[in-house]
Amino acid sequence: MTSERGVDVVAAAAAAAVKEIPDLAVELVGDPAVLQPQLSKVDGLGRLTLHPAGQVIGMDEEPGQAFRAKKDASVSVAMRLVKDGSAQAAVSPGNTGASTIAATLVLGRLEGVRKPAILFTVPHGHGHTCVLDGGAIVDGKPEDLLLSGIMGSLYVQEILGQANPRVGLLSIGEEEIKGNEQSLAAFPLLKQSGLNFIGNIEGRDLFKGHCEVAVCDGFVGNIVMKTAEGLASMINAEIEKSIRRGNFLVKLGGLLVKPAFADFKRRINKDEYGGAVLLGVDGICIISHGSANQTALKNALRLACNCVRQDLTRKLRGKIGLQLPTASN
Amino acid sequence: MTSERGVDVVAAAAAAAVKEIPDLAVELVGDPAVLQPQLSKVDGLGRLTLHPAGQVIGMDEEPGQAFRAKKDASVSVAMRLVKDGSAQAAVSPGNTGASTIAATLVLGRLEGVRKPAILFTVPHGHGHTCVLDGGAIVDGKPEDLLLSGIMGSLYVQEILGQANPRVGLLSIGEEEIKGNEQSLAAFPLLKQSGLNFIGNIEGRDLFKGHCEVAVCDGFVGNIVMKTAEGLASMINAEIEKSIRRGNFLVKLGGLLVKPAFADFKRRINKDEYGGAVLLGVDGICIISHGSANQTALKNALRLACNCVRQDLTRKLRGKIGLQLPTASN
Repeated sequence: MTSERGVDVVAAAAAAAVKEIPDLAVELVGDPAVLQPQLSKVDGLGRLTLHPAGQVIGMDEEPGQAFRAKKDASVSVAMRLVKDGSAQAAVSPGNTGASTIAATLVLGRLEGVRKPAILFTVPHGHGHTCVLDGGAIVDGKPEDLLLSGIMGSLYVQEILGQANPRVGLLSIGEEEIKGNEQSLAAFPLLKQSGLNFIGNIEGRDLFKGHCEVAVCDGFVGNIVMKTAEGLASMINAEIEKSIRRGNFLVKLGGLLVKPAFADFKRRINKDEYGGAVLLGVDGICIISHGSANQTALKNALRLACNCVRQDLTRKLRGKIGLQLPTASN
Repeated sequence: MTSERGVDVVAAAAAAAVKEIPDLAVELVGDPAVLQPQLSKVDGLGRLTLHPAGQVIGMDEEPGQAFRAKKDASVSVAMRLVKDGSAQAAVSPGNTGASTIAATLVLGRLEGVRKPAILFTVPHGHGHTCVLDGGAIVDGKPEDLLLSGIMGSLYVQEILGQANPRVGLLSIGEEEIKGNEQSLAAFPLLKQSGLNFIGNIEGRDLFKGHCEVAVCDGFVGNIVMKTAEGLASMINAEIEKSIRRGNFLVKLGGLLVKPAFADFKRRINKDEYGGAVLLGVDGICIISHGSANQTALKNALRLACNCVRQDLTRKLRGKIGLQLPTASN
């Protein structure tokens, strides 16, 4: 209900996802009068159903107030389906604040978690850097940055299978003395944490693969995420425009290089991920943009499936608190 | 002296700049024993000289302390050359904090300026967006964001010649209620300012040309600047790698598309600008990266020349305070 692209795009994305992923079933949560006509138009292979919810939280609503006022909001109903076990994961393409609050209050937090964090990825030359937080914790405390480091590190170890992940603190200079009040206070916490902390990193280092996990406040992380998406989209569009406007030889060249660019273009395309993982809640929740298109939504469903298959929640449960300093427990 | 690339790169950049720009003369400020041998190696056309300075502020030094302790630091000496009129502009490829403090305390601030701000640009499909602050004002007050909006707006009008520039506040959602404490407090100040304020913008909007000026805290802006630089460099490198690794047809295609990409690649290349303008000081100061290469340094010198030709300081003088609310004056 919260997609800015319309319910038809969501129904088409769900239909595409069940076709690609054999054991996936999707429940669309929202107003049956709106959803049913769209569902009838797509071939859901019998694995596409709807679950009624009478209310919607809009992009312009204050998340906390809206969550409390609208008990029957689609995002809250979706989280309750995960809580009661009738769904294994929720995918929310709407108000990030409302999705985070609904997930936190309905699913509950894992032990040791003060606030859940959003993990998103940016590409580098030979893989991806995990960045958190992507917008759940704005004006966070230094301890929230430590927690992001711990959760990101666990995610890389347990889900991506990479031992001893390097953790960097996103700042405005490599030197320990550079940063803002928040990052300067988080630095010693990360240094003493037992994580494989490599110190401050700068924006450009995200694209060099210097560390597997980059930690920052949700305000900064959300802007970094959208800056990277916006620039990559603009560059893609400009490359295509340059070829389209070129003479015959340029157009021919464009055709010839196309296969070589395919893999790389796929890697920098934001729609390839489609969503970010909310870490620290007791259940699986994928946060997608309100503006996510059909490909992005389909891939957000795929990401949710992967987290379920990897048993994300069980793998994090009980491990976060162990890495926090005793005083914070 | 502060370049991480070495004095030879700085000397070569200065030599290249005087060759390209007929009426430019460059004074390299620093240790004669280090600079003279490099100067002798390049052809400065008689317009490349050195000015002695006995100290250097390193990247890892606390800027305020270092500025006070090292009276003969190259950055301070360079600013004094501007202050006393023997130079028309300073270009500093070093510690951003130290450059900002030296410029502020030696040149002084323009009327109405609490703290100067760094203006940098990011490319969009049909031009550039000016973003400030790029790292001079970290943990700034809401009033600093208003001042950045005023100075950026004046720069676009007076230097780029575009009337009524649109000003956006960089945040994590378009809605007025979205942001962090700092941006939420800055929003009403910008709204009531008389600037052509279009409200919140998101990271991706920087690359869409939705506004001519984007305003943010220096911590956020510095990370955005380096994120954009890092991603653009990575994409350039990956495109070249894809072509290099491709078969004969891909390599041929690469040759054919190359001329069509040239203009675009130039626009997204960070070295094309080479520096950012420090606005709000009473003199012209260009801040460049410590890691700036020869092309970047040459273009930073070119940017300095343009600001001198455009008479930047005179055009801003007396106009900033007029746009501030009376209470802040």
